[in-house]
Amino acid sequence: MFCDKLTEKAIVLSDNPLAKTKNGNIAGIKKSSTYIFRGIKYANAERFHMPSKVGPWENSKPAVSYGYVCPERTTPIGYDAQVCPHYYMPQDENCQYLNIWTQSLDRNEKKPVMVWMHGGGWNSGSSVEQYAYDGEELSKFGNVVVVSFNHRHNVLGSLDLSEYGEEYAKSSYCAMGDIIECLKWIKENISCFGGNPENVMLFGQSGGVAKILYTMQCPECDGLYHKVAIDSGGIKEQIIPEGYTKKQIAQKLARLTVEKLGLSKQTIKKIEEFPYWDLVEAANQAEEKLKEELGRDFSWRWEPIEDGELIIGSTLKNGFRKETSKIPMIIGNVFGEANSNLIPNNKLGDGYKNHWSDLQIQTFCKEKWGNEYETILEEFKKVYPDNNPADVLFMDYKERDGQLNLVKKRLEIGGDVWNWLFKKESDFNGGTVAWHCSEIPFVFHNVSFIEASFEPGISDQLEDIMCQAWVNMAYSGNPNGGCVPEWNKMQKDNIYTMIFDEKCKVEKNHDIKLRELLKKADK
Amino acid sequence: MFCDKLTEKAIVLSDNPLAKTKNGNIAGIKKSSTYIFRGIKYANAERFHMPSKVGPWENSKPAVSYGYVCPERTTPIGYDAQVCPHYYMPQDENCQYLNIWTQSLDRNEKKPVMVWMHGGGWNSGSSVEQYAYDGEELSKFGNVVVVSFNHRHNVLGSLDLSEYGEEYAKSSYCAMGDIIECLKWIKENISCFGGNPENVMLFGQSGGVAKILYTMQCPECDGLYHKVAIDSGGIKEQIIPEGYTKKQIAQKLARLTVEKLGLSKQTIKKIEEFPYWDLVEAANQAEEKLKEELGRDFSWRWEPIEDGELIIGSTLKNGFRKETSKIPMIIGNVFGEANSNLIPNNKLGDGYKNHWSDLQIQTFCKEKWGNEYETILEEFKKVYPDNNPADVLFMDYKERDGQLNLVKKRLEIGGDVWNWLFKKESDFNGGTVAWHCSEIPFVFHNVSFIEASFEPGISDQLEDIMCQAWVNMAYSGNPNGGCVPEWNKMQKDNIYTMIFDEKCKVEKNHDIKLRELLKKADK
Repeated sequence: MFCDKLTEKAIVLSDNPLAKTKNGNIAGIKKSSTYIFRGIKYANAERFHMPSKVGPWENSKPAVSYGYVCPERTTPIGYDAQVCPHYYMPQDENCQYLNIWTQSLDRNEKKPVMVWMHGGGWNSGSSVEQYAYDGEELSKFGNVVVVSFNHRHNVLGSLDLSEYGEEYAKSSYCAMGDIIECLKWIKENISCFGGNPENVMLFGQSGGVAKILYTMQCPECDGLYHKVAIDSGGIKEQIIPEGYTKKQIAQKLARLTVEKLGLSKQTIKKIEEFPYWDLVEAANQAEEKLKEELGRDFSWRWEPIEDGELIIGSTLKNGFRKETSKIPMIIGNVFGEANSNLIPNNKLGDGYKNHWSDLQIQTFCKEKWGNEYETILEEFKKVYPDNNPADVLFMDYKERDGQLNLVKKRLEIGGDVWNWLFKKESDFNGGTVAWHCSEIPFVFHNVSFIEASFEPGISDQLEDIMCQAWVNMAYSGNPNGGCVPEWNKMQKDNIYTMIFDEKCKVEKNHDIKLRELLKKADK
Repeated sequence: MFCDKLTEKAIVLSDNPLAKTKNGNIAGIKKSSTYIFRGIKYANAERFHMPSKVGPWENSKPAVSYGYVCPERTTPIGYDAQVCPHYYMPQDENCQYLNIWTQSLDRNEKKPVMVWMHGGGWNSGSSVEQYAYDGEELSKFGNVVVVSFNHRHNVLGSLDLSEYGEEYAKSSYCAMGDIIECLKWIKENISCFGGNPENVMLFGQSGGVAKILYTMQCPECDGLYHKVAIDSGGIKEQIIPEGYTKKQIAQKLARLTVEKLGLSKQTIKKIEEFPYWDLVEAANQAEEKLKEELGRDFSWRWEPIEDGELIIGSTLKNGFRKETSKIPMIIGNVFGEANSNLIPNNKLGDGYKNHWSDLQIQTFCKEKWGNEYETILEEFKKVYPDNNPADVLFMDYKERDGQLNLVKKRLEIGGDVWNWLFKKESDFNGGTVAWHCSEIPFVFHNVSFIEASFEPGISDQLEDIMCQAWVNMAYSGNPNGGCVPEWNKMQKDNIYTMIFDEKCKVEKNHDIKLRELLKKADK
């Protein structure tokens, strides 16, 4: 979506670049070296039905505007435009659109394909929600084909109407169905965008990780991707109250929703006609009712349910499927995540941690960890001597534990895996530890578009290294090479972690004790 | 909204620039030389009530994210992302937000203030709807303070509930009320953004012109602005079927809407609680019913009604108010407007007009104008010898007639006025005549952000001239100066028109005969 300053004329419609897909020609634009195709329809779908393929067309279809994104339940304006600028496209159920950035339209180029799974998971978000998701710079920097896509989510993506007849037997798999259909479209068509359908890397962050892990548990997707890079997500199971199965909860939520709409098994077909806002209001009320029964803390993720067929078990409970063992992965997260002092709720004192005296830091640590605080502080200083000791207060060791657990599960099936931790502090707000999402512009080589992240000479060097690692992975299944410092593969008994910071380096088992201390103190 | 590549570090929150408004401090950002404040709340309002001032606050309020925009009736994705990229912010009734771009926060600077009235008029649009509306480049190029703002529109802006009691006596003036409140906020506060409250220029396009003309008919706004520049709008009155007054239609539409919602005079207060989508659906149905009665062609503009008090008469019917005679104006429009071959409906033959033979051009002209076509073609070649004669088919002489009518009305009250016509063809689609909105990026000095408009060495030269003319106007009330070719003021008996094209020049009475021929042939 970047509408940054053009330095040369963009190729305009009469002579714009045509990609010759199986179904017909698609006309994008060329901006400097990059061919951009926005809003290609990869599937069609009726509400609560699995998607179907798009039919062939004559002449050429323009792909210059991004497509509709899936309707959200609410779209509040973030306080975070400076750290994470958002891009909001109009919302419509008819949202099966993908975007492509590439340096060539030659079938013989066979460049690696990097498919971005956006955050927000099964509930919200879109392929263009964050400015950082724009694929132009990544495609240019890495000479790779970048793809991002929208799919249905929340009530449209997974309301489980299976009790209401055969027609809706798969209604809870609409979101997953869109993802599968998109990956199949890529397999069939990416070669005419210069991409290699036999070398596809999935990468994603937060809710995008959840979607990648489900894709890896889905046999229908085997062969549609070949490498994986995940950031900050997928570490926790949906919590299911005792006495229920996940399926039972999904069906119950659907039942309550249908009742709210005044429908029954006989009239269920009408659920396809309600305006989205009425449907979502009914689902919201149904969720409230469910909370009354299951507890206020209960929160439904709108994720598809492992049925042993489309989705074989859960990564966390059952481990990765053996069939995925040849997929190399990079797995990591950021230092602060949702614990960062970026988040207003996490603020302590005057909020400017880098102004605090040693005494203030000690006081805050004592308030948090009681008598353990001294040991924790000492250990933190040993592990991260270059950090302000105050940073320990905003560290998210739990997310890192979770990512290392995923690493362990990869090692169990013999997969190659590399681990990383993004620890770059931003000058924002007088010093802000890395927050959930803060690594995305580095991976996409988009740091100079983000006000709070761009530090000339520093952040641009780091994005070169990170982006190169992801690109190396896409090319060869190994993040090493070029400007990336030597990065050891994970071993069963040794945790090698690439620290992405002003200086990048690999650490060995560096924070085991620190995380143990924090875990103990938290109990 | 441009998130273009930063070349230096943006100033981030702990040390970001503070503007000290009457009510409290506002914290924006600094991007290179420009201070940017996004989403400043200038008023509060309850649904169907006139706005009220925002109260004072302590600490500083961040202004880094654009504010909510007024809900639309529908938001379709345009086919026009390449010629006119759009930016869609989340929609909410709570939409009284303005944005400021300035080069200084010094009260002593007293720079001219340019206040943009966005298109879409009383019905749709927002201060950030088009990328071209971004004020950074204009502020930098002209060293001026640029302001843009959102206000209520359509059903929220002007549903006339005056029949339902004193509380709603002014409900049809909510949109106008927001505009007035915004201009008052600027008067009170713009000095702390380096602006001169005694030198404010309103500029706007299309529906923005309608709003400017209403502002000029509103005595409460006298003294809140000092110069005006209008583009392509405000030339036609709302059509009112015989036997009705405008007020009667407005009240009837409100009555039908209230009925659709199942409300009455007793329960009217509940209209403030309906979800927006239900309200707008009722208004849509009410409008349909009105069409049944008044004819399918009837279309309601949601504009406020001249009441002789808040709004004194209509510009077109009653002429400009004498009180505005000291306001200098520039008035103009573009060559093709909605008649441009950009619009799919206007396409003729293969659509590539610049490929046509003389014979093809003649055939299309004959189909359109019958036997008059030869005279018209000859005259067009005389008037615009550098144009492809095919362009006559896509010329909008009616809009130009309308703008010259507004010019005439200015001259009637003795106002200074300059006229222009934007005629730059784009290479887009093999040659596209200037379309409705195509001049906006030139006025804002944003051409290099628009794929279909940027032609290095050509469009950037033209934007320098156009932007300079608007900036000159803002500084001195006269568009002449600097790189702008000498531009004669309009005279009663002579039409001087600045032609903005690859070469800019002033023509005298150049197209009177051509417009007469076209008018005659159209009859």
